[in-house]
Amino acid sequence: MTDEPIKLDPWANVEVKDYEKVFEEFGVERVTDDQKKAFKHHLFQRNLIVGHRDLGNIIKAKEAKKPFYCLTGIACSGPLHFGHKTIIDTVLMFRKFGAKTFFAAADLDGYLSRPKVRTLDEAYDFAAENIGHALALGVDEKDIYIQSRMPSRYYDFAFEISKKITPAEFQAIYGTMELGKISAVILQIADILHPQLNPFGKPMQGIVPVGLDQDPHIRLTRDMCAKFPQYKMFPPGGLYNAHQPGLREGTKMSSSHPETAIFLSDKPEEARKKCMKALTGGGNNLEEQRKYGGNPDICHSYATLKFHMENEKEVQRIYKECKAGTWFCGECKKLTADFVCDFLKAHQEKLKKTRKIADRMLEKE
Amino acid sequence: MTDEPIKLDPWANVEVKDYEKVFEEFGVERVTDDQKKAFKHHLFQRNLIVGHRDLGNIIKAKEAKKPFYCLTGIACSGPLHFGHKTIIDTVLMFRKFGAKTFFAAADLDGYLSRPKVRTLDEAYDFAAENIGHALALGVDEKDIYIQSRMPSRYYDFAFEISKKITPAEFQAIYGTMELGKISAVILQIADILHPQLNPFGKPMQGIVPVGLDQDPHIRLTRDMCAKFPQYKMFPPGGLYNAHQPGLREGTKMSSSHPETAIFLSDKPEEARKKCMKALTGGGNNLEEQRKYGGNPDICHSYATLKFHMENEKEVQRIYKECKAGTWFCGECKKLTADFVCDFLKAHQEKLKKTRKIADRMLEKE
Repeated sequence: MTDEPIKLDPWANVEVKDYEKVFEEFGVERVTDDQKKAFKHHLFQRNLIVGHRDLGNIIKAKEAKKPFYCLTGIACSGPLHFGHKTIIDTVLMFRKFGAKTFFAAADLDGYLSRPKVRTLDEAYDFAAENIGHALALGVDEKDIYIQSRMPSRYYDFAFEISKKITPAEFQAIYGTMELGKISAVILQIADILHPQLNPFGKPMQGIVPVGLDQDPHIRLTRDMCAKFPQYKMFPPGGLYNAHQPGLREGTKMSSSHPETAIFLSDKPEEARKKCMKALTGGGNNLEEQRKYGGNPDICHSYATLKFHMENEKEVQRIYKECKAGTWFCGECKKLTADFVCDFLKAHQEKLKKTRKIADRMLEKE
Repeated sequence: MTDEPIKLDPWANVEVKDYEKVFEEFGVERVTDDQKKAFKHHLFQRNLIVGHRDLGNIIKAKEAKKPFYCLTGIACSGPLHFGHKTIIDTVLMFRKFGAKTFFAAADLDGYLSRPKVRTLDEAYDFAAENIGHALALGVDEKDIYIQSRMPSRYYDFAFEISKKITPAEFQAIYGTMELGKISAVILQIADILHPQLNPFGKPMQGIVPVGLDQDPHIRLTRDMCAKFPQYKMFPPGGLYNAHQPGLREGTKMSSSHPETAIFLSDKPEEARKKCMKALTGGGNNLEEQRKYGGNPDICHSYATLKFHMENEKEVQRIYKECKAGTWFCGECKKLTADFVCDFLKAHQEKLKKTRKIADRMLEKE
């Protein structure tokens, strides 16, 4: 790694590699063992949450049974993949622990920040698709909102925020003054804070699970709270999910680069082929692997299981046996492919119904 | 005048002095005698409309009895004065000639583009006040909308527009990249075009009466139509009102500079004092004035009558007698003060009722 200052670009779709450096430079904290204990959940136990800001406030609120919220959103600029599923799983985890949950179908963001989405209509189509998936994954209809279909106060608040960000500040954080991206950012800040704003909610602690590359939004949002003392908002915490490795080396799963991802709308047999072709951590041949064991930490099959298989014992067994050289890539890839296919079949069965609900939500004004 | 390029700053509250130069540089056209004839109205007859873009399209639509619209708005950043009345009179004139009319209470704009409006709540208060005045001046309640209380499609459209303006373009037109002003501009473009957008209306010719200093918004708005071919919008025309001279020399009436203006909420006796103190075009003494006549063209008393007194014969009489040296500043100022006081009394009587309607409009979400 070089010693150049790190620039986090929320729109670049580049995987953050050197977590330690980002943590140090931007003041993101590691999750402690005590914090992991507060959330008995595989996302924490398996270190799929790599860092946070102010997670302690959420633990305190949870333990004191005070209201708190968890919000995330997905830019509607392409189909959802297994990387998105992890973000949604994180929201569902917090719901289980008592959070009010909010899921933004960020269709305006999709249009505004991605050149490839050329019209709002295209973004609306992605919104319908994404909401269908979110519902099928278990998000409640009442917890989902569509950026383009909000009450006026939400937009007024986004504009209100714009007056409080200086051009120099925006340029320093994002390295651009593109007007579409400015719009995307002020909307995103309104997203994150609106659960604390009348008439949407009231001031309370909140946490926002995102990829580490989205941290610039979190920092700017936290700074904004102090600019509106009249609203008495709490600076929300951030929670940084590890990115599931993409199918090409050195990538994260990204809908902008379809070759990197298994999509929630992939045909099961198509997904099976992707799984069977994925890079593993096996030795050069069976003999070597028996002798030295495999390396699950760089294996895409194992990553899929670690991110998505809830059965803790089975995931641990595979890890140990792989390292011990008693569990091999062929059977492991087949197990992973079966797991993914079974998941997709069940998910897509639910989707038949939830996609209709999503279409209905987009029709309403 | 210097030969420097002219910069029109819509937020500077500086009176445009050299109309010819602005017209030439930015392609604004003079109103022709034929065009004046198409609108038999004192605003045209008395040259209170100083220029236009594409007024011809409106005349054609009017004569072909095709739908067309007239839209204006006032930034809610202070109380209204007689300068604002002229803009509203212009809208009322177009309504008489068959236009669908729209009046924007631009509360978001007031907050976003004026440092002195420090919170949205302050802008809402100005909005209620301004709407009360607009109603009392004769604008229909159904033709008034509040920027901060619109359906989501309006805001989505403003954001949609933001993606199509490059930073270089914005900087060149406005000389700033302040985020609040960017927001104000995209909202203003959405204002001007939304009567042509589903579900608010449909594509039709439109005209926007503003002060000449607001022409940058008109130019940018016209350019935007081509960026959204899917909406089939007509580039709206612009209509440039002369600014009623402010009470201090070299100013226009401006709510940012209260010493320059007679406000619609001034107590009649307060307004009378302002009228009696105003600069006239009289000679150094009565004798000189008898001999050489007065100069109504630089007289603030006459300006008030020319802008606001509908009685054409009386205005012409005063002009002629002043020039002939048979009508003097003392009696003229008294007549003007009486006219203003009578107007304000009647207006403020109506205001008692209309202000309640305005408050109710702002309560509704």
